[in-house]
Amino acid sequence: MTRVGEASVAERREGPPQFDAAFRALLYDLLKWRRDVRRFKRSALPRETVERLIAIACLSPSVGLSGPWRFVMVEDTSRRAAIRQCFEACNQEALEMQAPDRAALYARLKLAGLDDAPCHIAVFSDRATAQGKGLGRLTMPETLDYSVVTAVHTLWLAARAEGLGVGWVSILDPARMAEILDVPRDWVFIGHLCVGYPVKDDDMPALEREGWERRHPPEGAVLYR
Amino acid sequence: MTRVGEASVAERREGPPQFDAAFRALLYDLLKWRRDVRRFKRSALPRETVERLIAIACLSPSVGLSGPWRFVMVEDTSRRAAIRQCFEACNQEALEMQAPDRAALYARLKLAGLDDAPCHIAVFSDRATAQGKGLGRLTMPETLDYSVVTAVHTLWLAARAEGLGVGWVSILDPARMAEILDVPRDWVFIGHLCVGYPVKDDDMPALEREGWERRHPPEGAVLYR
Repeated sequence: MTRVGEASVAERREGPPQFDAAFRALLYDLLKWRRDVRRFKRSALPRETVERLIAIACLSPSVGLSGPWRFVMVEDTSRRAAIRQCFEACNQEALEMQAPDRAALYARLKLAGLDDAPCHIAVFSDRATAQGKGLGRLTMPETLDYSVVTAVHTLWLAARAEGLGVGWVSILDPARMAEILDVPRDWVFIGHLCVGYPVKDDDMPALEREGWERRHPPEGAVLYR
Repeated sequence: MTRVGEASVAERREGPPQFDAAFRALLYDLLKWRRDVRRFKRSALPRETVERLIAIACLSPSVGLSGPWRFVMVEDTSRRAAIRQCFEACNQEALEMQAPDRAALYARLKLAGLDDAPCHIAVFSDRATAQGKGLGRLTMPETLDYSVVTAVHTLWLAARAEGLGVGWVSILDPARMAEILDVPRDWVFIGHLCVGYPVKDDDMPALEREGWERRHPPEGAVLYR
C-alpha cells in the first residue's frame, strides 16, 4: 500500500495548516463538481492510485475510532459478472415500480458504470470489529455504518481532486453482495463503487440534467427549535 | 440563508476547475486535521456562518437526488437541557458496560461539547421525502440515511476549512431526540453536532492521544476478490 503525502513532507509546516479563502473556493468547486459518475472511459487505473485513495479515505471520522470500513477490490471476472446480474435483477424490479414514462427515462439514465469503469470497490462495514471497544455506539450501532459512509465520501472527494470519477451503485441486494464476495458474516454491505476516468466533467447531477429531479434550496432543509 | 460563493463568482473560470498538487496537499491536510472536537471556546457563532455551512453541505451526494437531510438548529434553552439529560442518561449506561479502568479514562475524555459549543445542530433523515421519486433506494432504503451522513461530513470539512470545529454526539436516544425536537414522525435521527471554535487544533484524534484506541494501517481494511 502506498504511503500518502510523502512527496510533500518536506514542504509541510510545523503546526496546524491555515486554510485561506482561495483554498475554500477550490474546496467549494470540488464539492460542486463532484458527481455520481456513470459514464467512464475504459482506461485502466493503476492499483497504486486506488490504494492511495483508500489510504486517504482511512483518515475519515469513525465512531470510537473504530475504523470499521472494509474495501473489497473486485477484480475477478466472474464475480464482476455476478454483481452485474445482481444489479440487473434489482434494477428490473425498481423499473416496474415506476410509472411508464418515468421508467423510460430511468432506463436512459444509464445508472450503472459497471460495464466501463476499470475499478470496482465493494464497501462494507465490519459490525463485529473490536476496534473502538464499543465506544459511542451503544445507543446507535448504525454509527459504525455511518463511519464507513464518511470514508466513501472522502474517497469520492479525493478521487475527484485527482480528476477521477466515482459512481455509487445502490441498486443491489446486500445479502447477495456479501455472498458473491465471500466476506465475513458480520460485514454489512454499504455500497458498490465504480472508479475511473469520467467521460466528462459536470457541475450538474445527471438526474437534474435529464429532468428526473432537481435540487431544492437549503432553506427548506432547516428548522429552528 | 446566505448564498454561497458569491464573493468569488467574478474569479470563477468557465468550465470545470483544475485541481493541482498544491490543492490536493491542502485537502489532505484538511482531512488529517479534521477532528471530532469536544472542547470549544464559548464565543458565539454568527447564524449566517452556520447557514452558509449548511448550504455547502447541501452540495453532497444523495440517493436519487433525494436531498433527505434535515438540519434542526437547537436554540431553545430547555430543549438543549433536555438533550443534555438524554446524553447523561445514555452515557451512564455506556459507562457501566466498560471495564472500571476504561470507565475512568472514558469519563476523562469529555465526550460532549454540549456545554460549551455555541451552536447545536440535530441532523435527521427524512425517510418520507417524495424528492428523488424513490430512485435508487428500493433495495437499500438506508441509503437515504447515508446521504445525510455525507452532508454531515461535508459540513464538517467546510467548517474545518473556516477554522471551526465540529463534534458528533452519538450517545443519544434517537426516539427521545425526535420527541425533544418535535420533528415530523418520519424523520430518523442521524446525529447531533456541536459546532464552534475549537480550543486547539490537533492532527491526532483525542481517543488516540488519550490512549483509548489507535488507528490501524489501511492495508488491513482491504481485500482482493
